[in-house]
Amino acid sequence: MRTYTKEKLELFKKVNKNRARLLINCADQPGIVAAVSKFLFEHDANILESSQYSTNPQASGEFFMRIEFEIENLQENIKKLEEDFKEIENKFQMEATFKYVDNVKKMAIFVSKEPHCLLELLWEWQSGDLMADIKLVVSNHEVARELVEPLGIPFHYIPANKDIRKQVEEQQIKLLKEHEIDLIVLARYMQILTPEFVEEFKNQIINIHHSFLPAFIGARPYERAYERGVKLIGATSHYVTNALDEGPIIEQDISRVDHRDNAEAMKKIGQTVERSVLARAVKWHLEDRIIVYGNKTIVF
Amino acid sequence: MRTYTKEKLELFKKVNKNRARLLINCADQPGIVAAVSKFLFEHDANILESSQYSTNPQASGEFFMRIEFEIENLQENIKKLEEDFKEIENKFQMEATFKYVDNVKKMAIFVSKEPHCLLELLWEWQSGDLMADIKLVVSNHEVARELVEPLGIPFHYIPANKDIRKQVEEQQIKLLKEHEIDLIVLARYMQILTPEFVEEFKNQIINIHHSFLPAFIGARPYERAYERGVKLIGATSHYVTNALDEGPIIEQDISRVDHRDNAEAMKKIGQTVERSVLARAVKWHLEDRIIVYGNKTIVF
Amino acid sequence: MRTYTKEKLELFKKVNKNRARLLINCADQPGIVAAVSKFLFEHDANILESSQYSTNPQASGEFFMRIEFEIENLQENIKKLEEDFKEIENKFQMEATFKYVDNVKKMAIFVSKEPHCLLELLWEWQSGDLMADIKLVVSNHEVARELVEPLGIPFHYIPANKDIRKQVEEQQIKLLKEHEIDLIVLARYMQILTPEFVEEFKNQIINIHHSFLPAFIGARPYERAYERGVKLIGATSHYVTNALDEGPIIEQDISRVDHRDNAEAMKKIGQTVERSVLARAVKWHLEDRIIVYGNKTIVF
Amino acid sequence: MRTYTKEKLELFKKVNKNRARLLINCADQPGIVAAVSKFLFEHDANILESSQYSTNPQASGEFFMRIEFEIENLQENIKKLEEDFKEIENKFQMEATFKYVDNVKKMAIFVSKEPHCLLELLWEWQSGDLMADIKLVVSNHEVARELVEPLGIPFHYIPANKDIRKQVEEQQIKLLKEHEIDLIVLARYMQILTPEFVEEFKNQIINIHHSFLPAFIGARPYERAYERGVKLIGATSHYVTNALDEGPIIEQDISRVDHRDNAEAMKKIGQTVERSVLARAVKWHLEDRIIVYGNKTIVF
Repeated sequence: MRTYTKEKLELFKKVNKNRARLLINCADQPGIVAAVSKFLFEHDANILESSQYSTNPQASGEFFMRIEFEIENLQENIKKLEEDFKEIENKFQMEATFKYVDNVKKMAIFVSKEPHCLLELLWEWQSGDLMADIKLVVSNHEVARELVEPLGIPFHYIPANKDIRKQVEEQQIKLLKEHEIDLIVLARYMQILTPEFVEEFKNQIINIHHSFLPAFIGARPYERAYERGVKLIGATSHYVTNALDEGPIIEQDISRVDHRDNAEAMKKIGQTVERSVLARAVKWHLEDRIIVYGNKTIVF
Repeated sequence: MRTYTKEKLELFKKVNKNRARLLINCADQPGIVAAVSKFLFEHDANILESSQYSTNPQASGEFFMRIEFEIENLQENIKKLEEDFKEIENKFQMEATFKYVDNVKKMAIFVSKEPHCLLELLWEWQSGDLMADIKLVVSNHEVARELVEPLGIPFHYIPANKDIRKQVEEQQIKLLKEHEIDLIVLARYMQILTPEFVEEFKNQIINIHHSFLPAFIGARPYERAYERGVKLIGATSHYVTNALDEGPIIEQDISRVDHRDNAEAMKKIGQTVERSVLARAVKWHLEDRIIVYGNKTIVF
Repeated sequence: MRTYTKEKLELFKKVNKNRARLLINCADQPGIVAAVSKFLFEHDANILESSQYSTNPQASGEFFMRIEFEIENLQENIKKLEEDFKEIENKFQMEATFKYVDNVKKMAIFVSKEPHCLLELLWEWQSGDLMADIKLVVSNHEVARELVEPLGIPFHYIPANKDIRKQVEEQQIKLLKEHEIDLIVLARYMQILTPEFVEEFKNQIINIHHSFLPAFIGARPYERAYERGVKLIGATSHYVTNALDEGPIIEQDISRVDHRDNAEAMKKIGQTVERSVLARAVKWHLEDRIIVYGNKTIVF
Repeated sequence: MRTYTKEKLELFKKVNKNRARLLINCADQPGIVAAVSKFLFEHDANILESSQYSTNPQASGEFFMRIEFEIENLQENIKKLEEDFKEIENKFQMEATFKYVDNVKKMAIFVSKEPHCLLELLWEWQSGDLMADIKLVVSNHEVARELVEPLGIPFHYIPANKDIRKQVEEQQIKLLKEHEIDLIVLARYMQILTPEFVEEFKNQIINIHHSFLPAFIGARPYERAYERGVKLIGATSHYVTNALDEGPIIEQDISRVDHRDNAEAMKKIGQTVERSVLARAVKWHLEDRIIVYGNKTIVF
């Protein structure tokens, strides 16, 4: 890792050593906010950001909340904090998670031949805008090695095709486990993952699809967009599930094209959309802003 | 018609009495532009705007051109102009059309219950931004009558459902023929047209679909967009063909939504997109900017 | 008022008879959210939406909050609710306001010759998307009368120029007071208001300026944009203060232009931006989403 | 230069060895297009793209044209082509330039501390999307060295401040001359250039300014945008003239911000806009798409 990036990361951890995020999910019912905010107040927390959402506040909706806060000497108080909160969790039958900001997520990037999404992530990371600990890059091609290694990130070339999928994934999973990876980003990785792999990292794999889903599910979306004569092309970032291109959508964006743009031109234009859409999705995940609910995401 | 709108229209005709548009379509080959521009030069035409496009300029592409020009005393010279151009047409095996700007297109608007797209068209028309001669509004509901009649536009209430489709369309076609309609705009008209009707007005029917096609073809796109958890909703304006929602796309646009927007909210947000997308498509058609080629449009 | 619009308005009031909004502004300090949410919980309020913001949560920031909630039989409980809240208000030295949703705001629209912004507001209002009680339209020209009166809204023609400003404003203020106007929208009203007028309706006058402020403050922004050769034109909606075009900005948007667009074309393109920017700003004001703080707005 | 990039560049030159662009500028008058297209036809040119524009086609406008074409064995025919065209040039009193696509422009990038715009250019260049021969990077800081040198581009550290401006520029100009630089890109270079330097490279210096000009001319635009409470921030790419931030605008774009974004957040958001705006402007310049006319640009 370059000195510049390393220093950014160290500084980030230091500045955020007392900062945490509380994510809540339960059936909507009176008193939740009152209970939670009273709890934080009594634990001397300073609330920095707070968002809530109910799928149906007037009836039996599902309630979601994300609070970012600071507590002095957080490190020493984590255990007690979590224990004390159990009472509220039980009372409201919550699913609640505390996330600690200085506990920077460990990330792996998978890529095939086209490096634009990888480059965007590396670049945001270098400039300190994407706070992850990038542990490794995995690719079924050698092409990206020269982009990755100079930054001090290990590059693992693992040839892959559908006949050797099982072995390949075993090798990948081993690597991911060794590095205790929290997040796998498929930055234009052109191999399909097995249900076992996906199950192993549920809501921890983010993919970028090169169309505004659900249009052009599957292969060759730019060619098909060109054939259909669309005036917009897009990209979609989503969590990977075992339904191809049908996982919970995190972010989408589009760019305008016209009759002069053939499939090749659309691809070029689309790459700019792909890389910014993926970078936003990854950033939100790293900031614990995304809650998956059913096949949708809530992005706070 | 209100005095204000009438005056705008009369002024428009007067100002443009010498203005014409030449639309060309043929196999790409050397010398087309040279021949056409020499022709216009020799006929003392003043070129105001010129656009060209070839599907594949380096090989055997299809060539398209739109030239807007002025010629003094155009009215008296139309016949000779068109006759003289025959030589070039034949030489290059062109499909060529002259359009005369003061020959304002006669338009009919079809609408069902939701008036937002109709209102947008009427409003652009009132302000002189949409130069058409709106001859009539047809609806299978009475709801829009009070919006249309105060503007001096005849409103025809023709109840419709799939059982009486044939009779309904006969009545509609009779009206459209009587008024020599050039363009039919389906401004959220929720009835399917028969192949016979569509054939009768080929490339003369513009529809607005409330999704970014080809996503959510068919009914209830906002509900389905909500269920899928998309982060963008859109609208598509296209010429009507007999393949449902698959005609040549003229224009598309989108708007951003998030987890807080339910299907109802998406519908509201989408209406703003629908109306602007449809208005742009109609305007381009009225200005003879659109060439249909295969299942695509070239918009100059 | 047309039956259609009237019914929408009545329905809106009925549906929202138990709905209120609480707007809070005070120095940031521990315990605010806990106190407020406990209060609402104890008063059996059902929280529908809640947003908060602190200018500087880590130090001595200013705190803002907007909560939308429902309480059964709100009408009978208003008085007690407001009295009970006094304790919290005092404790935290808050500026707090309760707004009752069925108490629809009384609105006046001022317009000069160009009707596009007026038309947009009337249209949103007709379709039930802009919940205001439009009491009157004031204009220094007769041009808009035929757009306004058919909708059952009184139209007041008050000729104006800088020599008779005082008398004109006296007449206007009299009208506004008579109708207990809450919000004045300057929908392209091309007269400057006196400091006295502005003072009388502080943070109650919304203007639309036809540039992306602070670019092109003052007159003829499109001409100046054209001369400067910009590639974007915009519009800005802001509260009126006595510093010309320098009041708190509520909303801005832009549209792309290119070298082919002269000042006249920019004006046409800009009108579409103006009308949507103004409509959004007015809607947010009507929904009590805007808090003015210094010369800025917080839009929840 | 990496093998990958080098190969892209060589391939580009080879593919385009017969491709040229003709840029024309003269008083609008009948017969220009006819003469030019006849000329190209007679020289067996295959027209690939053609755009024209007149500031005022109906009166005494200024006429601009850009034609991209191919001629077999262009290299051997260049001289004759240019000589033959002289007749047309003289007849219409044209300013006409032939540009040869395989004659890839030599580019220098100037940067100070913030590397985001530099990185974007390097990245587009690496992926073969920005066809320039980047001869050198000049900086008044050492920070970017580690980004530049691994790509095989010489990095020149030339400390600068206003007291030694003359000497610094002499050193820079010497370098630029040695490398026969066609285009200087100021990728967030925070030094003001002297009139002499600017004069030396007229319409050959592209700058990126971090606001949607003419808003926030001069220093600290994000801070001032924050203070003004704008809802959009932007970036502007323009040719450098001796009027600070007032040169011909090539491209602009914006991003939405809200009350939660302080000056620091705006700066982060703005960087994404800056880099894409600059990259587009540079690309258009490299493709000879920009004609400067007065203080404006025509971008074909």
